[in-house]
Amino acid sequence: MISSDIAPSLAIETDSRIVLLVMDGLGGFPNESGKTELETAHVPNLDRLAAEGATGLMDTLGRGVTPGSGLAHLALFGYDSYKHDIGRGAIAANGIGLSLTKNQVAARLNFCTERDGKIADRRAGRIPTEKCAELCTVLNVAVKLPGVKVAVHPVMDYRAVVVFDGPDLSIEVADTDPGVVGVPAKPVKATKPEGERMAKLVAEFVAQAKVALASRHPANMILLRGFARHLELPSMRECYKLKAACIATYPDYRGVARMVGMDVLPTGDEIADEFITLKENWAKGYTFFFVHVKKTDSYGEDGDFVGRVHKIEEVDALIPRLMELGPDVLVVTGDHSTPAMFKAHTWHPVPAILWGKSVRRDETTSFGEREAMKGSLGRFDGAEFMLDILAHAGKLKKMGA
Amino acid sequence: MISSDIAPSLAIETDSRIVLLVMDGLGGFPNESGKTELETAHVPNLDRLAAEGATGLMDTLGRGVTPGSGLAHLALFGYDSYKHDIGRGAIAANGIGLSLTKNQVAARLNFCTERDGKIADRRAGRIPTEKCAELCTVLNVAVKLPGVKVAVHPVMDYRAVVVFDGPDLSIEVADTDPGVVGVPAKPVKATKPEGERMAKLVAEFVAQAKVALASRHPANMILLRGFARHLELPSMRECYKLKAACIATYPDYRGVARMVGMDVLPTGDEIADEFITLKENWAKGYTFFFVHVKKTDSYGEDGDFVGRVHKIEEVDALIPRLMELGPDVLVVTGDHSTPAMFKAHTWHPVPAILWGKSVRRDETTSFGEREAMKGSLGRFDGAEFMLDILAHAGKLKKMGA
Repeated sequence: MISSDIAPSLAIETDSRIVLLVMDGLGGFPNESGKTELETAHVPNLDRLAAEGATGLMDTLGRGVTPGSGLAHLALFGYDSYKHDIGRGAIAANGIGLSLTKNQVAARLNFCTERDGKIADRRAGRIPTEKCAELCTVLNVAVKLPGVKVAVHPVMDYRAVVVFDGPDLSIEVADTDPGVVGVPAKPVKATKPEGERMAKLVAEFVAQAKVALASRHPANMILLRGFARHLELPSMRECYKLKAACIATYPDYRGVARMVGMDVLPTGDEIADEFITLKENWAKGYTFFFVHVKKTDSYGEDGDFVGRVHKIEEVDALIPRLMELGPDVLVVTGDHSTPAMFKAHTWHPVPAILWGKSVRRDETTSFGEREAMKGSLGRFDGAEFMLDILAHAGKLKKMGA
Repeated sequence: MISSDIAPSLAIETDSRIVLLVMDGLGGFPNESGKTELETAHVPNLDRLAAEGATGLMDTLGRGVTPGSGLAHLALFGYDSYKHDIGRGAIAANGIGLSLTKNQVAARLNFCTERDGKIADRRAGRIPTEKCAELCTVLNVAVKLPGVKVAVHPVMDYRAVVVFDGPDLSIEVADTDPGVVGVPAKPVKATKPEGERMAKLVAEFVAQAKVALASRHPANMILLRGFARHLELPSMRECYKLKAACIATYPDYRGVARMVGMDVLPTGDEIADEFITLKENWAKGYTFFFVHVKKTDSYGEDGDFVGRVHKIEEVDALIPRLMELGPDVLVVTGDHSTPAMFKAHTWHPVPAILWGKSVRRDETTSFGEREAMKGSLGRFDGAEFMLDILAHAGKLKKMGA
């Protein structure tokens, strides 16, 4: 059951406040100790929430499917990720506040290091955002395409977004990011015949960019992925009658949130900053807060089991600040698993807590993958969760008389 | 989520090998001892797999639905049994290697015993396959239909398949098998107006067959069911990028396997023979092995609780031979329940084990219906299982960027 399909006819506006706290990549996998990151972490506050509420295991995009970040969040927000094909380029553009027009196509652009014709570092030594901005200017000055405007915008670190603007553009262009190092960047290719002209333009863009960046080692090359147009999604206000706000340090998550109509609240770089932002905006009329913690995922991608444990514990220590605010419903979960043992997103289901006065508490007494499988939420698909969350916040009326 | 709908855009080809071991009708029901057949059986090897992996309960065609064998296997293979209406006749034809042409309609034909105009034995005393072949020849010589060729092919024991070949045939003909003894065979009837002509042809066929078999007691009559045409299904290679092989002693299971593009490997009559066939073909490039054990179902149909227990134990004793081969992912389950207490297929969910290096092990320590309901696979629909299986074999890429 897709929440955003069902909810519009049932949703009612109320003042109750929901907090959806997403620890990115929360789900883990046991290391040699036999415990996952979450099972290893000392999380007394999350354990108490698990004990007082209900827990379960979520397959964000369904069983076996390893979610990308954008589609995973779309599912968490209750949307059908199999129907709404939001491309990474559009998410990235939204994440920095760009609204793409009908004539525009965007793609994620990563600065990278090329050596002897092969990609040596897909993240160009993780150059800082200021350097990224400088290089975007270099490209904006140097690159000229016939009949098409090109603008490269810095996002964060080595990440940028490129926006092509002109008539008859196409998104049918394959990613050039090979996903691994030690091989050349993929040549620009159309994925369908109607993408041929666009592919030529993009190839010309890449060629000119390479020349312009030649002396800019380690950021002497670019990789492109996720060619996409603006996608019109029904907003969370339309679907759920929620006034929703996003608190996220990373631009792409702000991008997905903006695509479903959330207000994006400015915040700082640290997890604690996000909780301060939540407090500052608590009484401003919002009825739904999406709070996103990125680092639990980043440490997983880096294979840092202990780092993930510490980040989870850092979040746990902040939970009392959240509880002081008096949320009506609190959800704690992840968007997918990023076990340090795998150094990547995986398909393993994600533990979830649903906490609130009307939640029928189950017998689980701690927050962890194995404990959650005994919880009363059972095992469920991501896109159906929002209905349950809304219900416990008193925001859904009876269906039928 | 139907695996074969989702997987085509996510599947990647790898060398990892999956074994799907199906004990037909595995799910049981407690007898007076309070334990099911599987719970009664001494299965140390299956218990170890359950302990090392994850378990759950599968509703092959959804909750409450009692599956027929063909559609149950189609679901296990990840296909939508509600969309692909494969008739028993087509399965039977495929099972003996016939490829039906567009002008052909097939039906399952069972030889049976008729006494005083009523069916006395629906299986004609389980005549041997040689006798069945002889009687098929009798029918092929005796029966003549105007403008339509008829060919009867032996399958196994009392089972055969009849293929009608001619212009404008129809599958809109009801089964003549009453499903019980002590009543007459059902008259041949069309199920829709467009089946009227076909029904007349089939009625004529049955009448001539009855005359031809009059002196052939106990096989003095025939029962027909599952009128069907060839059904074009996307192959497991197309859907999952798998090179799949089937090891099954019974023709109908080979038939379903062939319909989804599996290679059908010749094997012997015993369960042990099937495991030898698996070993012999282990290193021949296959990435998916479907191994089917029939007897667990047959004993259930016969109401033989102890016989089922022994067959389950026989399979358990062969598990070490399978594990020696080093499968990457092993699944042990059934296609439905056939509790001896019911002497028939039932809707009860089927216990399942998912075993592999990347499986997050749960806390179940033995293989049984009640233990499985505590497992981390939870309760799930048959057609979504393949996605999870493929994921654990590293055969699905991330969805979205």
